[in-house]
Amino acid sequence: MAQTSLETYITEHESRFLDDLKEWLRIPSISTLPEHAGDIRRAAEYAANQLRTIGFEHVELVATQGHPLVYADWLKAEGKPTVLIYGHYDVQPVDPIDLWQTPPFEPAERDGNLYARGACDDKGQTMLVLKALEALMRTAGSLPVNVRVLIEGEEENGGEAVEHFVRTASHRLACDAALICDTHMPSAENPALISGLRGIIYTEVEVRGARQDLHSGSYGGVAPNPLHTLAIIISRLKDAEGHIHIPGLYDRLRQPTAAEKTFWQQDPLHMNESLLEEMGVTQFTGEAEYPPLERIWGRPTLEVHGIVGGFTGEGAKTVIPAVAKAKISMRLPADLSADEVFTLFERTVHDYAPAGVIVSVRKIHTGEGVLVAPDSQAVAAATAALQETYGKEPVFMREGGSIPIAALFDAILHAPVVLMGFGLPDDNLHAPNEKFSLAQYYKGIRTVARFLQHMA
Amino acid sequence: MAQTSLETYITEHESRFLDDLKEWLRIPSISTLPEHAGDIRRAAEYAANQLRTIGFEHVELVATQGHPLVYADWLKAEGKPTVLIYGHYDVQPVDPIDLWQTPPFEPAERDGNLYARGACDDKGQTMLVLKALEALMRTAGSLPVNVRVLIEGEEENGGEAVEHFVRTASHRLACDAALICDTHMPSAENPALISGLRGIIYTEVEVRGARQDLHSGSYGGVAPNPLHTLAIIISRLKDAEGHIHIPGLYDRLRQPTAAEKTFWQQDPLHMNESLLEEMGVTQFTGEAEYPPLERIWGRPTLEVHGIVGGFTGEGAKTVIPAVAKAKISMRLPADLSADEVFTLFERTVHDYAPAGVIVSVRKIHTGEGVLVAPDSQAVAAATAALQETYGKEPVFMREGGSIPIAALFDAILHAPVVLMGFGLPDDNLHAPNEKFSLAQYYKGIRTVARFLQHMA
Repeated sequence: MAQTSLETYITEHESRFLDDLKEWLRIPSISTLPEHAGDIRRAAEYAANQLRTIGFEHVELVATQGHPLVYADWLKAEGKPTVLIYGHYDVQPVDPIDLWQTPPFEPAERDGNLYARGACDDKGQTMLVLKALEALMRTAGSLPVNVRVLIEGEEENGGEAVEHFVRTASHRLACDAALICDTHMPSAENPALISGLRGIIYTEVEVRGARQDLHSGSYGGVAPNPLHTLAIIISRLKDAEGHIHIPGLYDRLRQPTAAEKTFWQQDPLHMNESLLEEMGVTQFTGEAEYPPLERIWGRPTLEVHGIVGGFTGEGAKTVIPAVAKAKISMRLPADLSADEVFTLFERTVHDYAPAGVIVSVRKIHTGEGVLVAPDSQAVAAATAALQETYGKEPVFMREGGSIPIAALFDAILHAPVVLMGFGLPDDNLHAPNEKFSLAQYYKGIRTVARFLQHMA
Repeated sequence: MAQTSLETYITEHESRFLDDLKEWLRIPSISTLPEHAGDIRRAAEYAANQLRTIGFEHVELVATQGHPLVYADWLKAEGKPTVLIYGHYDVQPVDPIDLWQTPPFEPAERDGNLYARGACDDKGQTMLVLKALEALMRTAGSLPVNVRVLIEGEEENGGEAVEHFVRTASHRLACDAALICDTHMPSAENPALISGLRGIIYTEVEVRGARQDLHSGSYGGVAPNPLHTLAIIISRLKDAEGHIHIPGLYDRLRQPTAAEKTFWQQDPLHMNESLLEEMGVTQFTGEAEYPPLERIWGRPTLEVHGIVGGFTGEGAKTVIPAVAKAKISMRLPADLSADEVFTLFERTVHDYAPAGVIVSVRKIHTGEGVLVAPDSQAVAAATAALQETYGKEPVFMREGGSIPIAALFDAILHAPVVLMGFGLPDDNLHAPNEKFSLAQYYKGIRTVARFLQHMA
């Protein structure tokens, strides 16, 4: 009965649900650009008003050192579990603006998709949760479980405020499970739950040679060349076959489950093909003895993102730079602690540096990975909800990227984290023409509502 | 008698010789900046007028695709050899301008030095030749030998015009010896003749991976990373001990003479100490089995000058770039042909590139090295002239840098090249506060005059 009326309510209100999202998307809440501070606040208030209208008891804009957090709770489901729901209202910048087919802050429907900055990441995925809460409240007069909502405004800009809040006000976030709606599915036909995310260390390695830049004619042969030193260090850290040579790194890496191994090996959803196509290449690089999906999801990796120093203009200048720097990051399966790996990394960089230069390693930031326990009630509830909406069992898969808030919930709140997202691989996150499938938006509303019912 | 009157003439006119140089230095003839085209022309005309005043029969501004050449000749010394004298009237840019103690184009005397852009390189060293010619002409009524003068205006900007002229009008430059006054001495007490210069190949290695930049979270582990590829290639080309691994490179390298070996090993002028001090380091890098002077002067070297690609701003961005490029040059002792080495280099870069990327090697420019035969009449004349002026035998030493015109004269004109310069190691060439020692300027005039007398 309740189920029918929930379905009816959602169907009847789809059009308004879309309008509410569009109105939110028109606010250019770009968190990295100071000139959008006013928009950031308006976007936060818009979310708070939505929560008040739904009937949340306590709705608050939490002031921080940066952009405000939206916090709300409804805790009247006595004896029922508490679910913490996370989203973010800030969006990425829009450059290059001229590649957008329609303006990024004027939401436009085309071919069953809604195009706008934030359409998917993460206003779309946050709004679908709010609409699920609304539908539950309007049809049952209450929510099936206790709910806390936390929506941040700095996800695209480091997320310091929310981290501080989680660490210092964890009692206000006490919960039995957390839902993060900020990931994607392999395709519209294949629902997924994310079972693991990699952590990250992001570093800058600086090499200093001579006191000042030198001329390669006068000194080439006896002068330290920091760019060459970086090449030596980088090639020793990771060889041409993708093996990382940091003593101790692989010691704590645990074996994946048998199910994961099979999935990675057999690639039942043909994700390898999509990866090659997305990259525009004909072969994978990296550790040939592991399947490509394992290389991205289950193995530590090391990448160089940029090297500075010397001369990079047009033509020729024969300078040996005094200083050169490389940005190097590592992605880490959850078994590997970011801080421990940073210590190993730093020590190894020094070990690999040739004599005659001064090497220093700076930690720019770190974030832990996360592995979701597959046997929690929350995962069972999410599985059932996806199965009901999509008519198909979800796959459990990892993602190669990092969502630090997931690890934080895991570590600080000790709550199982459900990473259930409705994005698709072609949603153009962080790029021009970001979009969200309308069908996924509506299915997402239904799935989250069912998930909360199953949690009761 | 003539010698006395020459000495007297120079002594009496030192002050005007300096004024003439200062006037030339006030013209900001920066060849790389298009807005100085008028100054370039004025500087060329100034040199031409000097030559006319001295009494050269034929003085011409040779139009080129770029900046004009100044050509002059006086060919009345029947039965005597012909000496070709080379200099350049263009100068380097002056940035960073705020590090100059006095403005670069307002010549200022301090502590026995003349400070100005071009004071040494090469207006000062070119003017001292012109003043030697004037002194000879005024005191003897003629020159002791036939003289051709060629002064270019693009030495700091590739020197294409002069190369074209030498190659296509070599009959106008026919000579028995060439004098290039554009090098330095180890110290004011130690006159030197340069016996060898290294050649150069300057390249850009480009590596292309994926179609577009990728996110290291989603693709790290299977994506080609052109920056990592460059590190691998560079570390394979030259190892941490300074050995270059380009098959065939060392095959044609000839042994230095016994005298050179001894000089490099014993370092009688304590140049190693100066090198360390100039670099501001406590140890040399490179091939430990060769003395430092041999590493700079007698060994091929390979240097990376800059690497572009990915993200190099403040903070963290986890991009795997689609494309990365490295500027890499090699310095080559004269035994090694630049074109042959470029072919070896290109092939080896391809051999060292891992699979999964597209690598291309672009030749930006090349220049041959040169070895001066020690037994020519011209070298004997220069030796005698330096001995008379400085009261000391000159040392024969190489320089690590490249002067392509020297190799060109050697190859096209088949004339012994005398590389006799009066610069000092602390003259700040190409840097702020370029200077020329006044004592060296006046000694240079005397030495060149005596050299031409000895050539007769």
